[in-house]
Amino acid sequence: MTDTLSQQIAFLNEADKLKSVLRGTTLCDGSRRENSGEHSWHIALYAMVLAEHATRPVNIDRVIKMLLLHDLVEIDAGDNPIHGDHDPAKMAVIEQAAADRIFGLLPLRQNQQFRSLWEEFEAAETDDAIFAKSIDRVQPVIANLETGGGSWTEYKVSAEQLETRVGVKVRRGAPAIWAHLKTRIDTWFATH
Amino acid sequence: MTDTLSQQIAFLNEADKLKSVLRGTTLCDGSRRENSGEHSWHIALYAMVLAEHATRPVNIDRVIKMLLLHDLVEIDAGDNPIHGDHDPAKMAVIEQAAADRIFGLLPLRQNQQFRSLWEEFEAAETDDAIFAKSIDRVQPVIANLETGGGSWTEYKVSAEQLETRVGVKVRRGAPAIWAHLKTRIDTWFATH
Repeated sequence: MTDTLSQQIAFLNEADKLKSVLRGTTLCDGSRRENSGEHSWHIALYAMVLAEHATRPVNIDRVIKMLLLHDLVEIDAGDNPIHGDHDPAKMAVIEQAAADRIFGLLPLRQNQQFRSLWEEFEAAETDDAIFAKSIDRVQPVIANLETGGGSWTEYKVSAEQLETRVGVKVRRGAPAIWAHLKTRIDTWFATH
Repeated sequence: MTDTLSQQIAFLNEADKLKSVLRGTTLCDGSRRENSGEHSWHIALYAMVLAEHATRPVNIDRVIKMLLLHDLVEIDAGDNPIHGDHDPAKMAVIEQAAADRIFGLLPLRQNQQFRSLWEEFEAAETDDAIFAKSIDRVQPVIANLETGGGSWTEYKVSAEQLETRVGVKVRRGAPAIWAHLKTRIDTWFATH
């Protein structure tokens, strides 16, 4: 019991560092950049609120757990803004090593469970993972709409790039949400 | 559908403000005060990792949802550090009004569901809520141990006060976790 708890608390203390990983997007009031810890909370809440809009029915409890874990590898690998210019193959190697180290702090059984959920999220093939990915992608869009452009301005994103990098993934898991935002998005890009 | 989504997104944008509510405790590296958004993520992860230590078996999916919601009222009511000197009865009235306003942004069905989970957490009578409360209480203890005292120093907390305000509640929901931390806690208070 003591060994188990020591490992679990070591993992939770390591996880605390996610609060210091800064993302490309800001808070909805534009006051500062968002960190990946609070982002993970916000999108878990997003999933809880928006589950009914998933393309196919999802197990929302699994989706929430996936989203709570999905960014932990950023403690070692950093955040890679979707509109940035990182090399995806190189990042995948770094993130796998991060997953080995960070989930490896847990007792073996939980290491396997958590790793498996994270791998499922990354693969984006199951209904749960497809919806989770769409939620992860749509939250920065809403933050950018709230702040009058946000990271779209900073990264000089075009309407086509947003569609290819973000729209496709949001529509795959939650088409109604993208359709709902489309007018606001089109208006923004038409005027910037 | 459009009305439902508009209400849900308005709620999620309002929830963003929880990232700007600062708590009494700091991050584990002491670099800055923790906000209630990232705290909510961290304790949802705590619950996911530590569920096996609950006094009685819990429905971890309900516990996680409770913890994702539990601090939203702080957007209006602010954070009230457990070692601070707020009036609990007065705070309860303010938090009820906050819950009316914030959960009231959601479609009626979700307003009722979320409000009911939050009321259950506050009442701390069901097994799920008792465990959720113990997790909410134990995370700052671990942060304080990591930072060499943290808010215990700031609020001049005695070993007896920690036992009455925190220990009792953690032991009620997760006695093994408190027992595990007890030596480190006793050592800190014996030397400060």
